[in-house]
Amino acid sequence: MNFASDNAYGAHPAVLRALVECNDGAMMGYGADAVTDAAQAALRELLEAPDAVVRFVATGTAANALVCAQLAPPYGRIYCHQDAHIQTSECAAPEFFASGAKLVTLPGDAGKLTPDVLAAAIRRGAGGGLIGGMNAAVSITNATEWGTVYSVDQVAALARVAHDGGLPLHLDGARFANAVASLGCSAADLSWRAGVDALCFGGTKNGAMAAEAVVFFDPAQAEGFDYRRKQTGHVFSKQRYLAAQMLALTMDGLWLDLAARANARAQVLAQAVLAAGGDLLVPVQSNAVFATLPAAVHARARAAGAIYHLWPDKSAADCDPVSLRLVTAWNTPESDIQAFCDLLRAG
Amino acid sequence: MNFASDNAYGAHPAVLRALVECNDGAMMGYGADAVTDAAQAALRELLEAPDAVVRFVATGTAANALVCAQLAPPYGRIYCHQDAHIQTSECAAPEFFASGAKLVTLPGDAGKLTPDVLAAAIRRGAGGGLIGGMNAAVSITNATEWGTVYSVDQVAALARVAHDGGLPLHLDGARFANAVASLGCSAADLSWRAGVDALCFGGTKNGAMAAEAVVFFDPAQAEGFDYRRKQTGHVFSKQRYLAAQMLALTMDGLWLDLAARANARAQVLAQAVLAAGGDLLVPVQSNAVFATLPAAVHARARAAGAIYHLWPDKSAADCDPVSLRLVTAWNTPESDIQAFCDLLRAG
Amino acid sequence: MNFASDNAYGAHPAVLRALVECNDGAMMGYGADAVTDAAQAALRELLEAPDAVVRFVATGTAANALVCAQLAPPYGRIYCHQDAHIQTSECAAPEFFASGAKLVTLPGDAGKLTPDVLAAAIRRGAGGGLIGGMNAAVSITNATEWGTVYSVDQVAALARVAHDGGLPLHLDGARFANAVASLGCSAADLSWRAGVDALCFGGTKNGAMAAEAVVFFDPAQAEGFDYRRKQTGHVFSKQRYLAAQMLALTMDGLWLDLAARANARAQVLAQAVLAAGGDLLVPVQSNAVFATLPAAVHARARAAGAIYHLWPDKSAADCDPVSLRLVTAWNTPESDIQAFCDLLRAG
Amino acid sequence: MNFASDNAYGAHPAVLRALVECNDGAMMGYGADAVTDAAQAALRELLEAPDAVVRFVATGTAANALVCAQLAPPYGRIYCHQDAHIQTSECAAPEFFASGAKLVTLPGDAGKLTPDVLAAAIRRGAGGGLIGGMNAAVSITNATEWGTVYSVDQVAALARVAHDGGLPLHLDGARFANAVASLGCSAADLSWRAGVDALCFGGTKNGAMAAEAVVFFDPAQAEGFDYRRKQTGHVFSKQRYLAAQMLALTMDGLWLDLAARANARAQVLAQAVLAAGGDLLVPVQSNAVFATLPAAVHARARAAGAIYHLWPDKSAADCDPVSLRLVTAWNTPESDIQAFCDLLRAG
Repeated sequence: MNFASDNAYGAHPAVLRALVECNDGAMMGYGADAVTDAAQAALRELLEAPDAVVRFVATGTAANALVCAQLAPPYGRIYCHQDAHIQTSECAAPEFFASGAKLVTLPGDAGKLTPDVLAAAIRRGAGGGLIGGMNAAVSITNATEWGTVYSVDQVAALARVAHDGGLPLHLDGARFANAVASLGCSAADLSWRAGVDALCFGGTKNGAMAAEAVVFFDPAQAEGFDYRRKQTGHVFSKQRYLAAQMLALTMDGLWLDLAARANARAQVLAQAVLAAGGDLLVPVQSNAVFATLPAAVHARARAAGAIYHLWPDKSAADCDPVSLRLVTAWNTPESDIQAFCDLLRAG
Repeated sequence: MNFASDNAYGAHPAVLRALVECNDGAMMGYGADAVTDAAQAALRELLEAPDAVVRFVATGTAANALVCAQLAPPYGRIYCHQDAHIQTSECAAPEFFASGAKLVTLPGDAGKLTPDVLAAAIRRGAGGGLIGGMNAAVSITNATEWGTVYSVDQVAALARVAHDGGLPLHLDGARFANAVASLGCSAADLSWRAGVDALCFGGTKNGAMAAEAVVFFDPAQAEGFDYRRKQTGHVFSKQRYLAAQMLALTMDGLWLDLAARANARAQVLAQAVLAAGGDLLVPVQSNAVFATLPAAVHARARAAGAIYHLWPDKSAADCDPVSLRLVTAWNTPESDIQAFCDLLRAG
Repeated sequence: MNFASDNAYGAHPAVLRALVECNDGAMMGYGADAVTDAAQAALRELLEAPDAVVRFVATGTAANALVCAQLAPPYGRIYCHQDAHIQTSECAAPEFFASGAKLVTLPGDAGKLTPDVLAAAIRRGAGGGLIGGMNAAVSITNATEWGTVYSVDQVAALARVAHDGGLPLHLDGARFANAVASLGCSAADLSWRAGVDALCFGGTKNGAMAAEAVVFFDPAQAEGFDYRRKQTGHVFSKQRYLAAQMLALTMDGLWLDLAARANARAQVLAQAVLAAGGDLLVPVQSNAVFATLPAAVHARARAAGAIYHLWPDKSAADCDPVSLRLVTAWNTPESDIQAFCDLLRAG
Repeated sequence: MNFASDNAYGAHPAVLRALVECNDGAMMGYGADAVTDAAQAALRELLEAPDAVVRFVATGTAANALVCAQLAPPYGRIYCHQDAHIQTSECAAPEFFASGAKLVTLPGDAGKLTPDVLAAAIRRGAGGGLIGGMNAAVSITNATEWGTVYSVDQVAALARVAHDGGLPLHLDGARFANAVASLGCSAADLSWRAGVDALCFGGTKNGAMAAEAVVFFDPAQAEGFDYRRKQTGHVFSKQRYLAAQMLALTMDGLWLDLAARANARAQVLAQAVLAAGGDLLVPVQSNAVFATLPAAVHARARAAGAIYHLWPDKSAADCDPVSLRLVTAWNTPESDIQAFCDLLRAG
C-alpha cells in the first residue's frame, strides 16, 4: 500500500515495449533520429501546436529549471505560489540554472495563485527599482501541489495578468495529464490557448520511466535552449530512448487514459477518508488526496504497512487528527486501494 | 530635508583627508600595502579579535553576498528575516554569488528573528531531504531593516540556535555602528562574543565614501575568500583607498561617535512625529524612524520639499495615515531636522 | 555503416531485460530502492572499493560536470588535456556546474597528459596569486579522446603529480571499460589503486541506454554531492531504471566483454585503413581509429553510405589525404565492418 | 623605483579635489545624482557618442566581466587573445559573471589578434554544433597586455570579422587612454567608429583611485545591465564618488595628458634597456616595456631596489638574459626613471 508518490510506481508496458522496439540499429545521436522526430510531431499534434518547439529531458526538475533559466535572467523575478514544486522541492534548481534568479512566492488557497494577488505582486516588482530585481516570468503548476486543478478560465486569467505585465507564463505540468483528464478539456485549451508560453509536459508520473517534454509555443522563446540543455547535461546522446517513452504515451490517448485512472483511484481514497471520520483539506481534483485522519486511524494504517507522507509538515506525527497526503498512480493496485479503504473503515 | 537614506550624505572630512594622506608614492597593489595592514589591524583591535581575517570591499551588497557565498554552497539554505536587506534590496546578489543558494525567509516582529521561529525552520530544513536543499547558514541584520536593535543576549540566543544546527551566523552590519552606539556595549560583545561568525562592518552609511569590512572571526571560515573577492571584481588594485577610509573611521572612536550622532537625530524626529499625531510603527533604536503621519501632515512635508520613502509599500501614497521611513545620518543638517520638526508641528 | 560514434548504437538486450524486470511494484523514489542498492554494491565490488560512494546519472556530461563542481570552487583551476571531452565537447558544462571554474588546458601527444607538463602547469598556477585562480583539480580521460590508453603506471604518475600539488584526480571514464579491456588490468588497478579520486564510469557508450556511474573513492570528497545532483536535475525520481542498467552491465563481466568486442572491431578497421594506403594518426588502443585516408578512398566510402566524422576539423573535407575518426561499438554489425573493409580495399 | 604596475601609483590631485568638491550635501543614491549625470555626459562627449549608455564601476575586472556577461549567455563562446587580461588575470571573473561562458583563446604576435586567426576560430565555433557552445562575442584589449597598440585599421578589421560572424566586439580599455595617446587619433576613431560595441574605459591606471567606465554604444545592448551591475555589488550607493573621479579625468583632456606622460616614460626606459645590452620583446607603444636584460644588469637593478615583474614567467629568475616587464605611470617619479637608467648604464 504505497501512496507516497506517483513516482513510486513502474512504467507502462507500452513504454517498455517502445524502448525495445527502437533499440535496433544505428541512429545519429543527440536527437538527430527518427524516433525523436516522431515524438516531437506527436506532441505538437496532441497540443494542436504545429510550430511549437518540443524537447525531451529525463526529470521534472530539469524541465522546470531549464524553462526558468530560459525565461529569466540572473536578476529576474519569477512569481510562483509559495507551495510551488519549483520553490519547495527542487533543491533550488531554478535558482541554480538561472544563476540566481529569485522566486517570489505568493499565497493562495489550495495551492492556486489568484489574479489579484499576482497582479499586485507584479506591480510591486515593477516599481521596486534595481534593488528587487527585474520582473521576468510567472510560473504556475497544474494540477497543483495540492492536487487541485486550475480551470481553463483560471489559467487564462493568470496569463492575462502575466502578459499585461510583459511576462511569459510557465506551466509546470508534471501532472498536466491529470489536470486535463480532470477537466475534460483539450490539452491546447489548458495550455497555449489559455495563454501558456512554456509547458513542461510530464511523463514520469504518468507511465514513463523518466521522460518529460518541454514545449515552447513561440519558437522565439526557445532561442539557445538546446545549448542550455546541453550545458546542463540534459541532452541524451541516445535520445531515442527518451523520445520513445513520450511517443508511446501519446499513442491512442494513453497519456490521458492513465491520468484518468490515477484520478479515479484518488476519488476512491477520498471517500474512504471521509467515511473514516477524516476531512479533506482541499477538494480532490486530480490524483492526490490531502486530508486529515484521526490519529487512531492513522496509527492503524501505518501499522498495516500503508506508506504515505504527513503533510504539510512531514515531522508532525503526534497530532490528532493527523494531516497527510495520499497519491495514486494509474497502476496503484486496485487491491491496495481496497485494502486501504477497508483499513480505514475498520474502526 | 533629505531623510531618504543614510547613504544620501557625504563622507566625513577625516575620511577625505585620509585619502589625500595616503595618495603619495608607490605601493604594491591588491592589498599588499601598509595602509591596508594598518586598517586591518585597527579593525581587529576595535573588535578585540586578534586572529580575525579582515577584508575590505566597496559596497554592502558585495560584503553580504560574498559572505553568503562563502558560507553556503549552491544548494544551501540561508535563513534570514523576510525583510532582510539580502532578501529585499540586493537584487538577488546572495543567490548569484552563491550560485543559487536559497534564502529561506522567516517572519518576526520589528524586523527581528526569534530563536523559536529560527529553530523550527532549521529543524524543518534538516528534515527535508534533498528536495529542500541543505541547511547552510543564518543571517541577521543589526541594526535591522526596521531600525530596531538586537540586544547582545538576543544575538547570542540566535547564535546558539544556529550553532546547535551546525550553522554559522552572519551579521549584516551595514549599521552595526548604530547598533553598538544604541546599546552602549562593545563591538566584540555584539559580534563574536555573542556568537557571530562573519561580520559585515559597515562604513558607507557611517561617514565613508564607499567602504565596508568583511570580518571572519575564525580564519578557517575565510579559506579561499580572497579568490572569491577577486573573481567578483571586488579586489581593488589600489586598495589603499578602501583601507584608508576604514582606518579613518576607526581612529579615536570616530565610527561610534558618528553613529551616535545619527541615532540622536532619529530620536528628535521620532518626537516630532508623535507630536504631529503620528505613530511609531516600531521603537526607534538606531537612526531610522518608521512611522505613520496624518495624510495632511505628509502632504505639507512633501510640499515643503522633505524627501523620504513611503514604507513598506513605496507606492501607497493615498492612505491616511501615511506610512513612511525617515533615515538620519551623522551629518543630516541640524537645521533640516529643526525645519522638519517645525513643519510637522505647523498643523 | 555507421562509425560516427559509439553512442549511435542501441542498448544490450540484458540492459533492456533489466528494465522490464525491475518494473513491477512500488519502490520509494530518488534512489531509496533495492535496485539502486544492488547496483551500487555491484560497482563497489567491481572496483574492489567497499567504501566508495557510487551514484548514477544519465549522461556523461552530467557525470563529468558534477565531479568538476564537486572538486573545484568557482575560482578553481582544473587541469586537463586541450582535447579533453570536458573542454571540447560539453558546451562548458563543467564551467557552468562549477560556476565559473577555469579549465586550464595542456598539450600532450595522442591526447595524453604527461607528468612534466602537468607538474609545470600546477607549479605556475600555485605561484600565480589571486589573478589566475586557485589550483583545484586534475582531470584525465581514459581511454582518451584520441582512443589511446593511459597505462596503470601512467595514471599513477599523473596522480602523484596531482597529489603532490594537493589536487584530486578525476578520471573521465566514458570509455573506461575500453581502457580496462585494452590493458587487461583490473578496474581497481586503473582507478583508485593508481590514485584516481573520482571516477566517471561510463555505461552509455558500452551497452546502456543512458547510464553513468560517479564514484568517489573517498567518501569525504562526496560530501553534499547528492544535493548537487538534485539541484542540477540529475536525481531520477524512478532511479531504479538508471540503476538497473548499470547492474545489468556489471553482471558476469558483461561491461568488459562488450568493451573488448568494440576494441576488436576497431583493430579490424585499423588494418583496413592501412591496407587502403591510409595512416594511423595515433596507435589504436581502444574502440576508435584516428586515421588518414586517400581522398579517393574517402570519396568512395562516403558514396557507399559510410558515416564517420572528419577529424580534428569536421569541415576539412577537401584535403588529400582526408583525416577522420572511426568509432566502433560492441554491436557495430560485423557485416558493416566487413563491408567497409571491402570498400577500402576496392581501390 | 617601482615599475611593477601602473596601479602602484596614486591618484591625480584633480581627482582627489573632485571628491572633496562633491562631498557636501545630500544626493539621491545609486546614480541618481548630478555628478553622475555630468560624468556620463562628459564621457559621451569625449567619445562623440551622444546616445551611448555610460556606467561607472570601481575595478577593471568588474567592468570586463560585466560586459562579458552582458554579451554572452552561459553557453557562449567569447574569443580573445591567449594573453588577454580577462583570461590570465581576472580569476575567471568573466566565466563567473557569465555563469560558465567559455573564453576561447587564440594566439597572435605581440598580444594582438589577427583577422585571419579570429575568422577561422569563429567559423569553427559556428560549425561545432551544441557541444562547443554558441558563438557569442569577441574581446580585444587596447593597449594590449604586451603594451602594443592596435591601430584604428586593425581594430576595424577585427570588428568586421566579429560582425560578419554576428558577434559584438568588446574592447578592454584599461589602458585605452595610452592607446589613444600613442596613436594620436580620437577616442571615437579607436572605439565605435572602428566597430567597437562595448568599451571599458579605464581610469584607475590613469590617475583615478578606482574608477572605470563601461560604455555601450548601442543602448539596446545595455538592456538589463543596471540590474546586472547591482546584482554583482557594483552599484555604489554614493555613486557621486565614482563619477567625480571620471569627471575630473575628462576635464581639459587630463586623461590624455596623463596617458601621454606615462607613455613617454616608457620610451625612456626602453632606450635605457637597449643601451644596457637588453632587447625589447615587442615594440614599446604605450606605457610598458617588455624586455630582456643581462642577468648581471638585472641583479644590479634588483640590488638597488628596483621593483618589477619577471615576464612572462614570474618565477624564471635564474635565466640569462632575464625577461621582464617595466610599467610606467603618469606619476612615476622622473628621478626614479633617471636613477634606473643610470643603474642600467652603470655596467
